[in-house]
Amino acid sequence: MDLLSIGKKAKEASRILANLSGDVKNRALIEMAKSLYEVKGEILCANEKDVKCAKEKGMSEALIDRLRLNDARISSMAKSLEALAALPDPVGQGEVIRRPNGLTIVKSRVPLGVIGIIYEARPNVTSDAVGICLKSGNSVILRGGSETINSNKAIVSSLVSGAKKSGIPEGAISLIEDTSHESVIALMKMRDYVDVLIPRGGASLIRAVAANASVPVIETGVGNCHVYVDESADLEMAKSIIINAKTSRPSVCNAAETLLVHKAIADRFLPDVLNALQEREVELRGCPKTCQIYPGIKQASEEDWATEYLDLILAVKVVENIDEAIEHINRYGSSHSEAIVTKNYDSANKFLSRVDSACVYVNASTRFTDGGEFGFGAEIGISTQKLHARGPMGLKELTTVKYLIFGDGQVRE
Amino acid sequence: MDLLSIGKKAKEASRILANLSGDVKNRALIEMAKSLYEVKGEILCANEKDVKCAKEKGMSEALIDRLRLNDARISSMAKSLEALAALPDPVGQGEVIRRPNGLTIVKSRVPLGVIGIIYEARPNVTSDAVGICLKSGNSVILRGGSETINSNKAIVSSLVSGAKKSGIPEGAISLIEDTSHESVIALMKMRDYVDVLIPRGGASLIRAVAANASVPVIETGVGNCHVYVDESADLEMAKSIIINAKTSRPSVCNAAETLLVHKAIADRFLPDVLNALQEREVELRGCPKTCQIYPGIKQASEEDWATEYLDLILAVKVVENIDEAIEHINRYGSSHSEAIVTKNYDSANKFLSRVDSACVYVNASTRFTDGGEFGFGAEIGISTQKLHARGPMGLKELTTVKYLIFGDGQVRE
Repeated sequence: MDLLSIGKKAKEASRILANLSGDVKNRALIEMAKSLYEVKGEILCANEKDVKCAKEKGMSEALIDRLRLNDARISSMAKSLEALAALPDPVGQGEVIRRPNGLTIVKSRVPLGVIGIIYEARPNVTSDAVGICLKSGNSVILRGGSETINSNKAIVSSLVSGAKKSGIPEGAISLIEDTSHESVIALMKMRDYVDVLIPRGGASLIRAVAANASVPVIETGVGNCHVYVDESADLEMAKSIIINAKTSRPSVCNAAETLLVHKAIADRFLPDVLNALQEREVELRGCPKTCQIYPGIKQASEEDWATEYLDLILAVKVVENIDEAIEHINRYGSSHSEAIVTKNYDSANKFLSRVDSACVYVNASTRFTDGGEFGFGAEIGISTQKLHARGPMGLKELTTVKYLIFGDGQVRE
Repeated sequence: MDLLSIGKKAKEASRILANLSGDVKNRALIEMAKSLYEVKGEILCANEKDVKCAKEKGMSEALIDRLRLNDARISSMAKSLEALAALPDPVGQGEVIRRPNGLTIVKSRVPLGVIGIIYEARPNVTSDAVGICLKSGNSVILRGGSETINSNKAIVSSLVSGAKKSGIPEGAISLIEDTSHESVIALMKMRDYVDVLIPRGGASLIRAVAANASVPVIETGVGNCHVYVDESADLEMAKSIIINAKTSRPSVCNAAETLLVHKAIADRFLPDVLNALQEREVELRGCPKTCQIYPGIKQASEEDWATEYLDLILAVKVVENIDEAIEHINRYGSSHSEAIVTKNYDSANKFLSRVDSACVYVNASTRFTDGGEFGFGAEIGISTQKLHARGPMGLKELTTVKYLIFGDGQVRE
């Protein structure tokens, strides 16, 4: 099916989806989960093709692991759908404004319409995205990468057949099977049919979509996160936070990439913490001052400050004061998550108010930036932009509002 | 000053503005109003230049009237600033989430940062936009049209001098004095310095900005609005609503442009209402059925259904049923404001849930779509998009959220 037909059908389906009750959507999610369990064999078989192809292309073992499915991973995809069914429906909630002229204005939450998801690698994104879009009453158009096309086809076909059983309209869930560059470009220009695009993947993908799309975009998931250790910090706490932020899961967007340290404590703090990080196989790249205090590590370049490593690498900089730390973060960061470790009330306040990022922490690890950890129940991504949604995006962030105005003949003077 | 310097200064100023107290911002608004009164003479003199130039260029009297200032109009600009000072500050309001691990998450409202406004004609937009952006803690970069450049320069210079007296940082309020096409293009690409663009003006301006900007855009104010008169309508009420929606102020975005009438009442309803509209100098353009019932009017073309006249012209169509009316609106409308006139509960429900517009009315005029009429106190425009804001945009819509997370050493397992 060509892209325009997919868009048109998705739009038509979205008008029906918007008015389905929560019960119907929840039953569909349960059916979709059931369907994943039932055709597990077919999905694994399709995934095996993708893995084989990736090996032939010489893809790294780490990347192959991201695209590989097994029984446990498919069960976990199904469980996520079941968990979505148990969450409250974001659609239809509202506020009421009563005006002096007798008009009653209901500000009501409605789905966005059609959501396009452009993503790479992990096939579990396929079922997660479909589930979250359906739960929030939206049609979804998926454009995954070529490396997982067989897995994605099998997963989507399974989800569609489950959804159909519960009265979800055709066109509500589509996969663009054409994985050429042209199909992404076309999707990014489909203003008539697509209400929002959510790119999920590396910084270069996100940048390309944001720069070229005429459909509105929500940028997600690029995390060049910082931990700043203030002059007055509890140094044991600071050590535990930076170790957690850097090493607990280095490949995710809320992992820290740069450690900033106040000069007054650098001599005391750095040797111990950098030792501990090196013991955990973290490669260090330091500013001149850091390299002086802790010789033998690589010198950081200008580029390092701006890089999201997504790996066991950490840039380290000694700063004159908190102002330099804040300036550094606002200049090089990606507005995702930053933490200060401090005992000083004024420092905490200054950091919270001046750092221009979605999530700003005092005395906690940046790793908590996550829909689940924030108690949202589901997450489609972490927005690093300011418009529409910022930080972890749950079901509510996939809706908009509509004003319903009830009158009895009012006209305006 | 070149555009990049303006952007950079605006960004720097926005970081200070974001942390100013409501008191400081309110005092600035009062000072700005005072300043407008004080230099009224200079503003009128600059405006006279613009009017003279417009006359030389042969601009229509209607357009010249839109750009002309006088004592009353300047006073009204000043009063709007004073009224803003009296509104509550949208910044710093928040919700609190307490997590089981002891983290306290504050979802706090913060300014967007730097707002670019691209607009045409009316110089009152200049002071309104500056006031609303300042009140919501944002820097503003104005790019008005060449036809009002002298008025805009005088107004902005007056506002800046008032703002300065109350500690508003330099760079918070800027006017791009270069009115070439290149300056708009450059502004639309300034992703590093501008957080959002709000174009205010005709459909072609809005479309051009939305299609070409890499800075996020909020589309406002294109209103191809509809009134649908259902089979069961109170016909006197329907008549009063369409007359109000079309004729009370035809040049604004919430005026109706198309009347849709159920075929079962077309014979009874149309002759009387179309007579009344013609008496009010409305030019009518009808579908074949309308022309049959009410001969002597122009036939509507396909283009008419999609046109925002902003004038005393009305397209009229007889529809088979409510479904055709809804389909017509979703196809040709601009998702602004639509009204149904009906006594039937099911028709009202269907119209409210299926029409995909920002504001949907039952038994009231579309003319109420307005920040003031909705009780918001201030309005920067009416969003016809779904992302970020929809419908009348007040102060809150010029803010975003920031998560502030308070811990005592939490790390993630």
